[in-house]
Amino acid sequence: MAPNAHSDIETLIEMMARLPGLGPRSARRVVLHLIKKRAVLLLPLAQAMQRVAETARECSRCGNIGTTEICEICTDPERATGTICVVEDVADLWAIERGGAFLGRYHVLGGTLSALDAVGPDDLRIPDLARRVRDEGISEVILALNATVDGQTTAHYIADELADTCVALTSLAQGVPIGGELDYLDDGTISAALKARKGF
Amino acid sequence: MAPNAHSDIETLIEMMARLPGLGPRSARRVVLHLIKKRAVLLLPLAQAMQRVAETARECSRCGNIGTTEICEICTDPERATGTICVVEDVADLWAIERGGAFLGRYHVLGGTLSALDAVGPDDLRIPDLARRVRDEGISEVILALNATVDGQTTAHYIADELADTCVALTSLAQGVPIGGELDYLDDGTISAALKARKGF
Repeated sequence: MAPNAHSDIETLIEMMARLPGLGPRSARRVVLHLIKKRAVLLLPLAQAMQRVAETARECSRCGNIGTTEICEICTDPERATGTICVVEDVADLWAIERGGAFLGRYHVLGGTLSALDAVGPDDLRIPDLARRVRDEGISEVILALNATVDGQTTAHYIADELADTCVALTSLAQGVPIGGELDYLDDGTISAALKARKGF
Repeated sequence: MAPNAHSDIETLIEMMARLPGLGPRSARRVVLHLIKKRAVLLLPLAQAMQRVAETARECSRCGNIGTTEICEICTDPERATGTICVVEDVADLWAIERGGAFLGRYHVLGGTLSALDAVGPDDLRIPDLARRVRDEGISEVILALNATVDGQTTAHYIADELADTCVALTSLAQGVPIGGELDYLDDGTISAALKARKGF
């Protein structure tokens, strides 16, 4: 049977093909794999998706994804309340959490400012951030945005917005990644690492 | 929230990461994308998977995937009954159907013989094929197996098995792919295309 001869399987392949990083060929491969392992893979996966669809929601304070109105990080009494780490996306928050070095709270913008895609400050959680800095007695805002043009434009915009709050603004250090070989690094990174050199 | 802080989302990411072609990073990306588009993507996808899990089944005659005991191709009265095209996998069947050039029926082996993976003839649908050739009055068997060592080993094994049935055995032509540039082809393909050259 060709995919178009049978609408249920065809529909599933088309949906999978629209996911980021997948295309028609890999979607067909995944769906065939799922059908072959129906009991151990396809059914549990369908149920796991259903569960997440029913329970997952955005934290109304920081924009993180969780199951409650206010997420587990925002309500965790062991996390420092005075520091907010601003990230573009929940994926960035997860990446920082995997490192385990940050023990404050987060603010997920939900993207970056972009004139091309018509994304303005009100489309992101930037007004909320200014409100949080004032209301929650924040002493430091870490701008952990991506080192891209849009990310840095957004960082500068936020810095301007927060200028009158007297909060300390910091950003991630730039330099050679751990395990990085100089020969494989771009010139910009090497120049930045040289400029920011420190005592050995 | 880190993935391990919330078990439902974490479970979903782990399941997605085990799918062919996906890893932990792409699984996280897909799951975040799904959660962001819950109504238009996550819920419909969960439901489509549930439907396929409930309805999809292997055709008891040819091994194709469909929704009925005998698949749509096997029961289609417009398809030639005398020719069987033998393929390794349902994905290969779909690829041939996309071409639209074959109007007979199929036989999906479900893999190739492999001493390394301990796959013998009885683990594939090879005994069923011999039975079909005898019972269905088949005049031609097209061995459309992959041009790999395992594929060709399997083709030779099937040819031996069917030797006493007097059925005509054919295989796909080998040569230059349509649109293929000689400079980018491997030596084996060029040699095969030269040997099988034909009048212009």
